[in-house]
Amino acid sequence: MYKNLTIEEQKKLLSAEQERYSSYKAMNLSLDMSRGKPCKEQLDISMDMFDKITSTTDFKRKIDYRNYGIADGIPELKKLFGDLLGGISSDEIIVAYNASLNLMYDTIQRAMQFGVLGGTPWNNQGSLKWLCPVPGYDRHFAITELFGFEMIHIPMDDNGPDMDMIEELVKDPSVKGVWCVPKYSNPMGIIYSDEVVKRFANLKPAAKDFRIMWDNAYMVHALYGQDSMLDIYQEAKKANNEDIVYMFGSTSKISFAGAGVAFMAGSKANMDDQRKYMGKQTIGPDKVSQLMHSLYFTSVEDIYAHMEKHATILRPKFEEVLRIMDEELSETGIAKWNKPRGGYFISCFLEEGTAKRTVQLAKEAGVVFTGAGATYPCKNDPHDSNLRIAPTLPPMDELKTAMHIFCCCAKIAYLEKVTA
Amino acid sequence: MYKNLTIEEQKKLLSAEQERYSSYKAMNLSLDMSRGKPCKEQLDISMDMFDKITSTTDFKRKIDYRNYGIADGIPELKKLFGDLLGGISSDEIIVAYNASLNLMYDTIQRAMQFGVLGGTPWNNQGSLKWLCPVPGYDRHFAITELFGFEMIHIPMDDNGPDMDMIEELVKDPSVKGVWCVPKYSNPMGIIYSDEVVKRFANLKPAAKDFRIMWDNAYMVHALYGQDSMLDIYQEAKKANNEDIVYMFGSTSKISFAGAGVAFMAGSKANMDDQRKYMGKQTIGPDKVSQLMHSLYFTSVEDIYAHMEKHATILRPKFEEVLRIMDEELSETGIAKWNKPRGGYFISCFLEEGTAKRTVQLAKEAGVVFTGAGATYPCKNDPHDSNLRIAPTLPPMDELKTAMHIFCCCAKIAYLEKVTA
Repeated sequence: MYKNLTIEEQKKLLSAEQERYSSYKAMNLSLDMSRGKPCKEQLDISMDMFDKITSTTDFKRKIDYRNYGIADGIPELKKLFGDLLGGISSDEIIVAYNASLNLMYDTIQRAMQFGVLGGTPWNNQGSLKWLCPVPGYDRHFAITELFGFEMIHIPMDDNGPDMDMIEELVKDPSVKGVWCVPKYSNPMGIIYSDEVVKRFANLKPAAKDFRIMWDNAYMVHALYGQDSMLDIYQEAKKANNEDIVYMFGSTSKISFAGAGVAFMAGSKANMDDQRKYMGKQTIGPDKVSQLMHSLYFTSVEDIYAHMEKHATILRPKFEEVLRIMDEELSETGIAKWNKPRGGYFISCFLEEGTAKRTVQLAKEAGVVFTGAGATYPCKNDPHDSNLRIAPTLPPMDELKTAMHIFCCCAKIAYLEKVTA
Repeated sequence: MYKNLTIEEQKKLLSAEQERYSSYKAMNLSLDMSRGKPCKEQLDISMDMFDKITSTTDFKRKIDYRNYGIADGIPELKKLFGDLLGGISSDEIIVAYNASLNLMYDTIQRAMQFGVLGGTPWNNQGSLKWLCPVPGYDRHFAITELFGFEMIHIPMDDNGPDMDMIEELVKDPSVKGVWCVPKYSNPMGIIYSDEVVKRFANLKPAAKDFRIMWDNAYMVHALYGQDSMLDIYQEAKKANNEDIVYMFGSTSKISFAGAGVAFMAGSKANMDDQRKYMGKQTIGPDKVSQLMHSLYFTSVEDIYAHMEKHATILRPKFEEVLRIMDEELSETGIAKWNKPRGGYFISCFLEEGTAKRTVQLAKEAGVVFTGAGATYPCKNDPHDSNLRIAPTLPPMDELKTAMHIFCCCAKIAYLEKVTA
């Protein structure tokens, strides 16, 4: 434990780590650990999909899929993703765009401009607030920042967000929503507990137009076989509260991050509310890409089998990152991290006030990590402590080097601070 | 000329047309002439495109196009469409979505929510107005209707919209924009004259955030070889007025209506303004579809050659529609119509107060035409006169039958009215 050492011992250690750091720097590296991107091998898994659509493909279904029509997604994918979500009907799902961020942004923009289910537009309701479990996903926070929400930090533990706090805060009618990545959460990798899911499903906010943005980005992205999670929508239905949640997902990390298919789901009332505006905004989604996906993934079992291939590639990467962190950091006492069973990230909490310095040092040694603070609204981690590690993209050898550099930089940042 | 006949003669004609109408009705038809959709043969033209992307395609360019990245479109398509627009730079163009309606809607929504180039959001500027050349495109009008604009009708003639009226109206700072389909306009099929384009390019509205929505949907959709049109953007640049116009286009009617690629273009300032919000809204467009298009269309010449194939299919359809209208209606004096050199429509003006009845009669005989009024804001044609004929979708034999029924119904509607 570094903190139990004398200053002299700490200075000695710092000097040793600085020497090691110099040798890393001399390698003139250029490694990117910043984003949750699939690696080349993962993208290669789905290449066969492209042979599903050729010059001889018959596109004629109820309509010709090459032509205009079907504003909210082809029935084949509505069925597939409806099944994946535990069996919801085609009225309760919209399939559109190549990634779900666009759906989430548009949903919030529509609430701002037109209101939710005929309610007053959020634009006309004065200063509004949004609940942000932290650490969380930077692109979520960027949307609610853009629309001017005051973002309230909700602490996370291994069961999910602090529900006592959320249940208290939603008594304020100016609180309009909450961001959730409920399974293998970004970045903590935890699965919301049954109790947390139930309490979300039973939430009765003062604002009738409060919505849970349930971004199930990693719903099938398991490393050790499909883990179960309670179905928020069925729980909400039991509580006659099914309008409370918008669910989102995509194949960005199932098929292609740059060319997937995405969906949103929820009560018929909620979906009809979206369709009303989508009907003016778009002439319909790309049905060729949708058909290609539906010919490749013909059932939920196909998706599960496919995700097993991803897991085979990703499991060693996650395990190697965790092994190096264990090896280098577990006895220092300067870091805590999660061991996820799925998803795209490992979340690491360093000693307060050392995250930015760690990222800076790594950058100067040629390794880009997600910016410190990125996992908090407005990129501002009040403790300057959390870092998000994205093990998926780099090849294994780069990943190893990058993680050793990470550990070295984290040590230097801590030792600089305590010896200053 | 029907109007020169005696009432008795008109009644006799009516009775003859009614008899003919009964025989059409007995055919139990179900024909759709309502939308500007490409026909099967047109969609077949581009089928080879699907062989450009297979399981062995190399997607690695500056980045791997299967992965995240490139928020505003791949450079290959920026170059292609930039060239098509007469040589504009990659800073001045955004390639996104599978159809341009989404880009137009989002652009207006951004102006509503965030303002234009840092100006006051349109949402916060009180009651606003929009200029709508009529007859025009129903989906344009539906967008400005949704956002609550008061829509002002601008008459069109063979040169384009009435520019005297527009120049006068833009002195009002609450007038924020104008819809234009400048080439083979929807539905009149006219090409804006050089003078009209110049006057648009030189427009100096009171509102600094006034924008021309220049929807060049049919820019290469010629029936008789590529007609030239003055380049509004170059004219606007000459006048130091390049922020005045947003340009839009897509391959919806070049490749696939349900799976094309779309773009918007304009000054770097205007495009950067869009990129600022797009960066929060989306993780990037579908780069697989974009790459497929760029491998298929490698130059502007490729596009022109491709459009010649469309013209070969469409020219006989347009000519047959016009021939039947000439044959059946030219001597009646009850209708006027345009003879377009491109685009997707023929616009027909019937005697005042007979358009709705004509569409109703046709519907009852099993032929759906675009609803009367659809070419006017809020679907309200003050003269109940204009109808949009879409010759592209139906096979030739259906087209012929539908047009004879159209003429028969137009005659009945007129004769009913004058003999009532």
